[in-house]
Amino acid sequence: MPDPRESERKGAPPRVTLGHGAGGRLTSELVRELFLARFRNPHLEPLGDSAVVAEPGGGALVLTTDGYVVTPLFFPGGDIGRLAVCGTVNDLAVAGARPLYLTASFIIEEGLPLAELERVVDSMARTAREAAVEVVAGDTKVVESGSCDKLFIVTAGVGCLRPGADLGPDRVRPGDRLVINGPVGLHGVAVLSQREGLSFQTTVRSDCGLVSGPAALLVERLGPAVRWMRDPTRGGLATLVCDLAEDAGVPVIIDEESVPVPPDVEAACELLGLDPLYLANEGKLVAVVEAGAASEAVRLLREAGCPEAAEIGRVSPSGPAGPGPTRPRGYLRTRYGGTRLLERLDGDQLPRIC
Amino acid sequence: MPDPRESERKGAPPRVTLGHGAGGRLTSELVRELFLARFRNPHLEPLGDSAVVAEPGGGALVLTTDGYVVTPLFFPGGDIGRLAVCGTVNDLAVAGARPLYLTASFIIEEGLPLAELERVVDSMARTAREAAVEVVAGDTKVVESGSCDKLFIVTAGVGCLRPGADLGPDRVRPGDRLVINGPVGLHGVAVLSQREGLSFQTTVRSDCGLVSGPAALLVERLGPAVRWMRDPTRGGLATLVCDLAEDAGVPVIIDEESVPVPPDVEAACELLGLDPLYLANEGKLVAVVEAGAASEAVRLLREAGCPEAAEIGRVSPSGPAGPGPTRPRGYLRTRYGGTRLLERLDGDQLPRIC
Repeated sequence: MPDPRESERKGAPPRVTLGHGAGGRLTSELVRELFLARFRNPHLEPLGDSAVVAEPGGGALVLTTDGYVVTPLFFPGGDIGRLAVCGTVNDLAVAGARPLYLTASFIIEEGLPLAELERVVDSMARTAREAAVEVVAGDTKVVESGSCDKLFIVTAGVGCLRPGADLGPDRVRPGDRLVINGPVGLHGVAVLSQREGLSFQTTVRSDCGLVSGPAALLVERLGPAVRWMRDPTRGGLATLVCDLAEDAGVPVIIDEESVPVPPDVEAACELLGLDPLYLANEGKLVAVVEAGAASEAVRLLREAGCPEAAEIGRVSPSGPAGPGPTRPRGYLRTRYGGTRLLERLDGDQLPRIC
Repeated sequence: MPDPRESERKGAPPRVTLGHGAGGRLTSELVRELFLARFRNPHLEPLGDSAVVAEPGGGALVLTTDGYVVTPLFFPGGDIGRLAVCGTVNDLAVAGARPLYLTASFIIEEGLPLAELERVVDSMARTAREAAVEVVAGDTKVVESGSCDKLFIVTAGVGCLRPGADLGPDRVRPGDRLVINGPVGLHGVAVLSQREGLSFQTTVRSDCGLVSGPAALLVERLGPAVRWMRDPTRGGLATLVCDLAEDAGVPVIIDEESVPVPPDVEAACELLGLDPLYLANEGKLVAVVEAGAASEAVRLLREAGCPEAAEIGRVSPSGPAGPGPTRPRGYLRTRYGGTRLLERLDGDQLPRIC
């Protein structure tokens, strides 16, 4: 890592220095010229340490946070900035909330080219507009070269619960169906390929995107027939199914045949010894809906711009016959007709995927 | 850094592994046994990706976020966990809000001893109880050894504006007074001494603590006579004065003689060539109040447990006579009777102080 001042003297691209995080003149310039210029809104504009916003009124608040440490910072289909907005907005959306406000905290390694930070923040601002949320408060810390890996972003989100949303694992009943808005595994394969310099027949692009539109449509149109929603990010669809079975206390079975997996993801997984069901997704939502509402849910998801939406499984009155675990668990009905237990992963298939 | 699994086999203390951040079984155990056990409350308990909380009702929401990257993690008078709660609660408090909810996002370096993480989270939980706030949502990421420095924490805070609070730089008027709740420089010197292995006659302890009690008392008792508040953290009191002058568009003058500086801080600063006015504080608030309310403000701060509260300066109708900058700025009336311009620091006196 060259000394940043050295590069500036030589006319090389400017880089983030420790001074940008010191709270003095450089911080003030960075905040005004880089962050405020891109995120500008009346709540952020005063640049106080807090933002005062209108109370949404009439319902419960929904709060969430996520840290983003993905490497590399840019990958086919997205970047850490888009991820940091989508991930947090999506967490609000699948909780049945209308996303309203984000806070954004940046931890930057000294020496990061300012142009890379600008690209990331441009992407965040664009994605925030797409999601109709405002970034209302932020923070920047700069650490010495070697004390973090380029850039970490933490966003927190505030939303208000949509009227009619009544979601929770306790609402899940035997017979309910699982629907998904599209194919799994794209984000995991896109990031891994970029990281390892792998290439497949075509470039696999991350699905990094918003699910707030589809989630809103399901809640608005189906009301209480939507029982539970979640986005299958880190740990993938399989981990989501394990969590659902455990939290709802019911066996959950997904059909391997019905889960959409793109051919390139399939090929990459075979090559690398990965299971697409455990790969991270960043633009998917899984909803548990009443059996009678399943085909309407799939139709609505397609209407919301998700042509590959599908019904992928169901909540079972009981696990498969024969000796098995006593607590309700998640299962996969394989394409060969057998049923196997889905285990949580002990370790990490792909560290720093999000 | 030894391989964490190696240490476990040898019976050495357990450490955080990449698996703890993978979203699988180990993540689930860490979240339940380490985080939920300490932060337990009905909003966090469901362990969803979001928390649903009651809307406070009747006023504006206040949102804030801060990242904490202090090194070392533990220092006399505090630790990164206490800092991560106090810093964010204090930002809400000085905005005139009642702090209600926090989110907490952890970025952990693989290999961090679990016992250190437990100490930090214990300290956060204790401080959250002291502040009467709930940690309602969280996230954990683990990065490879060498990709971050032990532990970073980002908290976001949600509060509701207190009735009667009417704060902002636009409310500051010539003649207003500045009051502070106690001595400056303790946090900066405490962290630096710990980091560099310096010792002075007595151990300087960080002032890392809550200002929510004193802030509430000022707003409740003095109402609109309180014009503006802020906590002088990174960049210290001098940077706060520069920001205030610029944001309010009025010259601000503080009296060197009136600013409480403990003798140990003074001694450390002389030894190290530092200026106490630029050192970080983590338990201080500065309020701008109407001139007629200044002595009552100091009395209230003392009543709130801040015996060294003092009036330290004022908002001036004009800058000092003679040629000078055209925009309103911050000034120091020195103990020798002169007046000098306070400059924002270009670089960093002390990186990673908070």
